[in-house]
Amino acid sequence: MKYLFTHLMGSFIFNEQLKRVDFIPFTQLEDYQHKNQAEEKLRRKHPEAQPLPQDKWMPVMQTFQDRTYFQEFYTKNCELTKQGIKNSVSDDNLITQTIANINELDKVSNLLTKRLREWYSLYLPELSKERSSHEQFVRSVAEKSKPELLKELHLMTTESMGAPLSKNDVEEMQELALLITKLYQVRQQHEVYLEKIMVRHCPNVLELAGVTLGAKLMELGKSLKHLAMLPASTIQLLGAEKALFRHIKTGAKSPKYGILFQHPFIQNARPALRGKAARMLADKLSLCARLDYFKGEFKAKEYKKELEEKINR
Amino acid sequence: MKYLFTHLMGSFIFNEQLKRVDFIPFTQLEDYQHKNQAEEKLRRKHPEAQPLPQDKWMPVMQTFQDRTYFQEFYTKNCELTKQGIKNSVSDDNLITQTIANINELDKVSNLLTKRLREWYSLYLPELSKERSSHEQFVRSVAEKSKPELLKELHLMTTESMGAPLSKNDVEEMQELALLITKLYQVRQQHEVYLEKIMVRHCPNVLELAGVTLGAKLMELGKSLKHLAMLPASTIQLLGAEKALFRHIKTGAKSPKYGILFQHPFIQNARPALRGKAARMLADKLSLCARLDYFKGEFKAKEYKKELEEKINR
Repeated sequence: MKYLFTHLMGSFIFNEQLKRVDFIPFTQLEDYQHKNQAEEKLRRKHPEAQPLPQDKWMPVMQTFQDRTYFQEFYTKNCELTKQGIKNSVSDDNLITQTIANINELDKVSNLLTKRLREWYSLYLPELSKERSSHEQFVRSVAEKSKPELLKELHLMTTESMGAPLSKNDVEEMQELALLITKLYQVRQQHEVYLEKIMVRHCPNVLELAGVTLGAKLMELGKSLKHLAMLPASTIQLLGAEKALFRHIKTGAKSPKYGILFQHPFIQNARPALRGKAARMLADKLSLCARLDYFKGEFKAKEYKKELEEKINR
Repeated sequence: MKYLFTHLMGSFIFNEQLKRVDFIPFTQLEDYQHKNQAEEKLRRKHPEAQPLPQDKWMPVMQTFQDRTYFQEFYTKNCELTKQGIKNSVSDDNLITQTIANINELDKVSNLLTKRLREWYSLYLPELSKERSSHEQFVRSVAEKSKPELLKELHLMTTESMGAPLSKNDVEEMQELALLITKLYQVRQQHEVYLEKIMVRHCPNVLELAGVTLGAKLMELGKSLKHLAMLPASTIQLLGAEKALFRHIKTGAKSPKYGILFQHPFIQNARPALRGKAARMLADKLSLCARLDYFKGEFKAKEYKKELEEKINR
C-alpha cells in the first residue's frame, strides 16, 4: 500500500509507515500549476499508489517540519497568492471601477456647475436662467465674452443687473468653467472606453441595455458571472432594494423596477404598462447576461425587436 | 403753508389744498441721485415750505395717478433697482464666492483621488500605501509609467500584486489623474487671485490670518463690515456654532475656538494654552477687521510680533 501526496514543494510517494520512498520536487511555480504531469509520472512508477487519506495528513505534514523547508514553502505560497490576486483582475473590475468613476464625475461636475452659476451671477445674472442645461451654461461662460452673451440674450449693457467686474475677476470664473468642460470631456472618454470593454466582455447586455445602464447593472450585480446567475425577477429590481425591503417590512407597495427605469423601453411605455415592460425587459436582460457569460451567440438585436413588437401590441 | 415733496420723477411744491404750484422734473436718473440740489433750489424759492407730513401722502400720490406718468415712474424705478443691485457687488462677494469655490474644489479632488486610488490599485496596489499624500499620489500616476514606479518602490515586476493591464486601461486612469492635477492647479490659481483681492480689501486681516483662514473668516462673518462689527469673543468662536449651542443647551464644555484652530499660532501653542491663544488672536483679528473696514493703517505686522512675544512668555 502506497500513498500519493502533492503540495507546493513537490509530488511525493509514501509507504505504509509514511516514509518517503519517491518524489518529484517542484523547482518553479509553473511545476505546481502543472502538478498533474508529475502525479501522472509517479502513478506510472507506483501503480498501486492511492491518494493520501485525510486522517494521515497530520503525520505526513510533520515530516516537512524543517526550517529551510518551511521558508521555501512560505515564499512559494506568497508567490502563488500574488499570482492569484493578479489573475483575479477581470473585465468585471474594470467595468465596475469605470462606471463608479463616471457616476462620481457626474456628481462632481454638478456641484461645481452650481457654484459657477452662483459666482457668474455677480457678473451676468441673466445667463443662468436662460441656459438651464448645465453643460450649455458652462460652455457659454468658458467660450464667450459678456458683450457676445448680452447679444445672444437680446439685452443692452445697461439692462443687465450684473456688476462691471474687472478682467481679472472674470478670468477666474472662466478658468473654473474650463475646468468643468474638462470634467465633461473625461467623462465622455470614460464612456467610450467602457463601451470598448463591454463589446468584448458582454456584447449582448451592451446592445440591449446601452453603455451606462449596462455598466450599472454589472456594478449592482457585482460581476457578469453573478449577474448571469440572478433570476430575472431580481434583475428587474436591482437598484430598488430600499423599496423592496420597505415592501416586505411594512407592506407598502412593491416596486416595479429599479435601475431599469432608465431604459428608454420603460420610459416610453404608458405608465400602466411600465411594470409589465420592466418584467419583459428583465427577462431578456437575464438571457443576455447568460449568453455573454457562457460566450453564446449575439442575440440581443432579436430580443430588442421582439420587445418592441410586444409593447406595441 | 407749503409742502415740499420729492420722488423719482421730480421735486414738487404743493400748497395747502395740495395743488402743485412749482416743481423741478428729473429727466435723468442722476438727477434723483442728487435730489438735494433740486430740493435746495425749491426751498430757496419757497422758504416757508415744509416736508410733506405722512398723513397727506395718500392724496398727493393720487395726483400722480396718470397712465403715462405711471409708466415712466415704473421704468425709472426698475433702472434704479438694477443700479442698486449692480453696485451691491463688492469685494466681499468676490472673496466669499472664491473661498466657497476653493472649499468645493478641495472636497471634489479628495473624492476623485479616493476613486483613483481604488482604480489604480488594480494595476499597482503597492503605490497607494507608499504615497499617503493625495497630491503626490496623483502626480505619480499622471507622470510616471509602471516600470519607473516599480523602481521607485524598490520592487521587481514579479513582486507586484497588480494585474498586467493593457495600455488602453492604464491611459484611462492616467487621464483621470491628469484631470485631478488640473483641479489642484485651478485651486492654486484661485488662492493667488484671492490674495490679490484681499491685499486691497483687507490687508490687515490677510497679514494676520493668512489667505485661506482670512477668507473663511470673511465668509463666516458675511462681509468685512459685519466682521468689523462683531465682538472679538464672537470672532473667536466663528465656525464653532454647533459646539456653542450644544454648550448652551446641554451644558457641555464650551468651545475654545472655531475656525481659528487652523491658525499656526494656535496649532503651535501648548494644548493647555490654546484657549488663551485663541482669545488673544481673536482680539487682534477684530482690531484688524476694524482697521481694514475704516481704511486705517497697516498694523498687522506689529500685532503679529506682539502675539508671538506674549505666547513665548
